[in-house]
Amino acid sequence: MEYKVIEGGGITSPKGFTAGAVYVGVKSRKSQKPDVAVLYSETEASCAAVFTTNKFCAAPVILDREILKNGKARAIVINSGNANAATGTQGIEDARTVEREAEKLLGVGENEVFVCSTGVIGQKLPVEKVLEGVRQIIPAKLDKANGSDAAYAIMTTDTVRKESAYELELSSGTIRIGAMAKGSGMIHPNMATTLAYVTTDAKCDSADLQKMLHNAIDKSFNMCTVDGDTSTNDTMILLANGASGVEVKTEEDKAALAGLIEHICIDMARRIASDGEGATHLIVVESYGLPTEHDARLVAKAIAGSTLFKAAVFGRDANWGRIMAAAGYSGADVDPTKADCIIKSSAGEVQVMKDGFGTDFSEELAKAVLTEHDITVIVDFHSGDGKAVAYGCDLTYEYVKINGDYRT
Amino acid sequence: MEYKVIEGGGITSPKGFTAGAVYVGVKSRKSQKPDVAVLYSETEASCAAVFTTNKFCAAPVILDREILKNGKARAIVINSGNANAATGTQGIEDARTVEREAEKLLGVGENEVFVCSTGVIGQKLPVEKVLEGVRQIIPAKLDKANGSDAAYAIMTTDTVRKESAYELELSSGTIRIGAMAKGSGMIHPNMATTLAYVTTDAKCDSADLQKMLHNAIDKSFNMCTVDGDTSTNDTMILLANGASGVEVKTEEDKAALAGLIEHICIDMARRIASDGEGATHLIVVESYGLPTEHDARLVAKAIAGSTLFKAAVFGRDANWGRIMAAAGYSGADVDPTKADCIIKSSAGEVQVMKDGFGTDFSEELAKAVLTEHDITVIVDFHSGDGKAVAYGCDLTYEYVKINGDYRT
Repeated sequence: MEYKVIEGGGITSPKGFTAGAVYVGVKSRKSQKPDVAVLYSETEASCAAVFTTNKFCAAPVILDREILKNGKARAIVINSGNANAATGTQGIEDARTVEREAEKLLGVGENEVFVCSTGVIGQKLPVEKVLEGVRQIIPAKLDKANGSDAAYAIMTTDTVRKESAYELELSSGTIRIGAMAKGSGMIHPNMATTLAYVTTDAKCDSADLQKMLHNAIDKSFNMCTVDGDTSTNDTMILLANGASGVEVKTEEDKAALAGLIEHICIDMARRIASDGEGATHLIVVESYGLPTEHDARLVAKAIAGSTLFKAAVFGRDANWGRIMAAAGYSGADVDPTKADCIIKSSAGEVQVMKDGFGTDFSEELAKAVLTEHDITVIVDFHSGDGKAVAYGCDLTYEYVKINGDYRT
Repeated sequence: MEYKVIEGGGITSPKGFTAGAVYVGVKSRKSQKPDVAVLYSETEASCAAVFTTNKFCAAPVILDREILKNGKARAIVINSGNANAATGTQGIEDARTVEREAEKLLGVGENEVFVCSTGVIGQKLPVEKVLEGVRQIIPAKLDKANGSDAAYAIMTTDTVRKESAYELELSSGTIRIGAMAKGSGMIHPNMATTLAYVTTDAKCDSADLQKMLHNAIDKSFNMCTVDGDTSTNDTMILLANGASGVEVKTEEDKAALAGLIEHICIDMARRIASDGEGATHLIVVESYGLPTEHDARLVAKAIAGSTLFKAAVFGRDANWGRIMAAAGYSGADVDPTKADCIIKSSAGEVQVMKDGFGTDFSEELAKAVLTEHDITVIVDFHSGDGKAVAYGCDLTYEYVKINGDYRT
């Protein structure tokens, strides 16, 4: 499938979406970074969403699960700086207050606005500040040009905005898809402190969207790990407003849209792993030749998540013993005696293991390979057709510094 | 149960055990630290053992599983500096060669000597060096006074020897128990780069010992986590040689011995967590009030293993949100709305959460509490009788440094 990149595009690239963001002081005064964002669909959008599996899910997650039952939505309000998690019934009331205010200002129906929060756990949401932000944004700041502002406003420890957009020709016309995401720490399958939003101007019913989103997340966010901690706030929302006039009805078009959603979700997952807290490397792990896809997923995730291997990559050390140890404890059905392992990057590739044994590889080349930012680890167990890809990052001093200091 | 500490005691404190250690250059020349050790029982000992669950288990683990079938043993040869893992059939032959040589020198039967290795994965065991060490030790260096030398020789990135010994009165007489262990990185349930050895001069059959060891490990090593990586070499061996003349036969005495084994295993697990790579804190997590013990174990292990919480402890930040987030993703049946959480140390205690909400605790006191080396986190969910204890450590710059540099 040929996906045409929309240069500089993002969440408002599909037709009929606008966004806006402001700073109101939910984040600390010293940062002065925008902390409230609104994403708006000019017409009613079908929606799909996936939320954290953490039992201590945040108040907005509880609210959004209700809103999702609607199957349609008009807007999403997001604040950073405070997660509104472990805040009890008060937290849910606060989220509801934000939702109602946005609905009133937008003149849309009840249960048509999602609310999301990310930031510190366990402090009451400064709801007046968030409301102030909502009032500043709606309607004055809602604009097609402000998608990137919204991507900036949802960041916490992220160092870069994560957004992209693509265009795709379907049999019945051209559709666009856009995404923005945040997430840097507390990132691990299944779903993470990830907030991620995908918009499309295709028309598609919400049951189909929900199925497509689940499949896409299994190949992307659920294969992404930064630190093994699954957050309380993970939320991924997909809105399809049909503003392109293109209805996705045939199986072929549905498959194409599903592929596009998967593509943009993988794009976001890679960006999140790449911007993992303190990370200096993106680590992509491809596993092949496992008895089942499930085994392959376990192996890829275990390697991408191995604290020891992550530290070795930071040290530019091709310590393949740790790769194999991780495969061995992954829970997958693996046969060590058949394993091949290659580490590669734009600087070249080095086969560190063949038929279950370490090779006499060039340490110099390996170091050169590991000097690049984007590293790919390929393992093949020659025991079946199961394959998978996981996305992770290295473990650095900076990660420890960020997370030793976060709250204080 | 009253356990009398044997001051300065260790693996050779029980009657009829001797040990010896030498440096032969399996470890790098610059360290000059002992790297081969032998533990010897003057009479035949019943044995029990537990090994890594990692599918890439090391060659000596494969050999030792065979030896264990014997139910009895006379000695254990241990080398550090090389794990003899991912070394194929050659590795197994090498381990077998070491075993045979020790048996010949000791004049004992076949399959009566366990062989263990710890160190770098994927490099051929320098078997001639290990044999040289065995020949230097047997019989010249085998001595009751050398238990502590053996505890030193099995260390890799450990910074302190881990050994202790206790005495206990049974109905039929006094027995002694001793232990040594190593382990610092690649430590996680279930079993780790832990090598651990327990000796006792009680007489007890190996089936009973095996049961006691399993129970003890479930409360100790399997509740101990440093970095979430399960190693290829984990081995725990228990030898009971009966040299005290005290036979453990009654249910009461069996329960007493089982308790003693559990006690010394917890002692070793605490020391391993406390000496975790780069650690500046021991973190003991006690979970209470869960529906089942299984839930309680999941919660305690998830908190002790949370990368984010470990980093927060390093930063002396009472970030209870991360404690609760870890409980929430642990997979346990937990109800966040009832949770209490206390953090304490010798500097005092601070209740950071009550009935599911953060309290208005003194940040100053919390910082003081977290300044101590040994920290205890107590969580109570008031939903049943399930309880458990897990042992972990903080995540520090030094951990990253050690593991970025290990192999090179």
